[in-house]
Amino acid sequence: MGDGSKGRGAAGMLGLKLGLYIITYEDPAMGYGHLDVARAALDGGADALQLRGKEISGRDMYYLALRMGEMVNDSGNRCLFFVNDRVDVAIAARADGVHLGQQDLPASRARSLTGEGMILGISATTVEEAKRARSDDADYLGVGPVFATPSKADAVAPIGLEGLARIRESVELPIVAIGGIDVENASSVFEAGADGIAVISAVTAAKDMLEAVRRLRSLVDACL
Amino acid sequence: MGDGSKGRGAAGMLGLKLGLYIITYEDPAMGYGHLDVARAALDGGADALQLRGKEISGRDMYYLALRMGEMVNDSGNRCLFFVNDRVDVAIAARADGVHLGQQDLPASRARSLTGEGMILGISATTVEEAKRARSDDADYLGVGPVFATPSKADAVAPIGLEGLARIRESVELPIVAIGGIDVENASSVFEAGADGIAVISAVTAAKDMLEAVRRLRSLVDACL
Repeated sequence: MGDGSKGRGAAGMLGLKLGLYIITYEDPAMGYGHLDVARAALDGGADALQLRGKEISGRDMYYLALRMGEMVNDSGNRCLFFVNDRVDVAIAARADGVHLGQQDLPASRARSLTGEGMILGISATTVEEAKRARSDDADYLGVGPVFATPSKADAVAPIGLEGLARIRESVELPIVAIGGIDVENASSVFEAGADGIAVISAVTAAKDMLEAVRRLRSLVDACL
Repeated sequence: MGDGSKGRGAAGMLGLKLGLYIITYEDPAMGYGHLDVARAALDGGADALQLRGKEISGRDMYYLALRMGEMVNDSGNRCLFFVNDRVDVAIAARADGVHLGQQDLPASRARSLTGEGMILGISATTVEEAKRARSDDADYLGVGPVFATPSKADAVAPIGLEGLARIRESVELPIVAIGGIDVENASSVFEAGADGIAVISAVTAAKDMLEAVRRLRSLVDACL
């Protein structure tokens, strides 16, 4: 552990493809749930799908993860499926990987639980966090928030394209940029060195989620 | 799995001693935290200690669990240490076991993660839940709420001593009764067939937590 090389886990072996990474959300008042976002992500051709919901009970998270894993398999797409925060749920539901924020279980401990067979993603806002994630054997980084975002009211201040570029220069891990990314600014994010974009609002706030995913898909394909 | 026999896990081998089982809580406004409750539990001679805090981040839960595990070891007491809900945290912090409610990861999935080396406790309110927990390889049951309790505003209706006795008759697993138990009613709970009592408020609402644990300890010793 911590030899400073790239992650040893599943990511390297898979040749991680994370260009369009969609994170689920639910808004009962707006009439959609996590599975609706997953459906649009899969039908629209996302490369990765993450189930995130801090307020969901362990049991509901497990059953949602099971269902999403089935949806991915049934779709026949090569879409990677991640569970946010709950390493136990990710393992129990046989997700492809787990994504951890800085307030979640420490990455090195998570790796002990998942073993090398699962993909480990870590959120990083600073160069220091990015380097630590690399030495903790992360397979990719979620870097941001790049721009201000309505989806995370408690998020830290945006790091901007400059902050993203600094982290890009400091580590060789795949970087998925996150935070306020949409069809208008996505190309600038790729220009700053991101390997992929993670979105929530750009999909869930759209009138037609599937159409939003398709537009993002075309844009990512044009940028990569 | 699920052969209907008693749990195959660590509990059977250890000859589980769960007479006085104390669950942590924090109330910053009252000036105490999880570690203060743990300190009182250990100094007062509790048989088991459970870290519970649904609102705690994965990272904080992990570090709290590590610290509590150290406190238990340093005390020299033979006190079992459990983590509530988070199977990943329990494993990462090398707790003796994990305790799961009906809204947490399903017990059979949790057992796959912990293996046979950890103690698995499951909350049960009904005979049906108790029997399912047994077939899911639980090592002990947390049964309640026996009485109304101020610690869990969202708890279901109390099952009373009658409900406890019905579950006692239906399964042979060790039963730790929970919910509104204090020095006044504890002996009736043991008479109804409990092998132990789990308390929160009976300790945390006391002016002197250590003194409260000691009084409960004497009472449990007199009942068992």
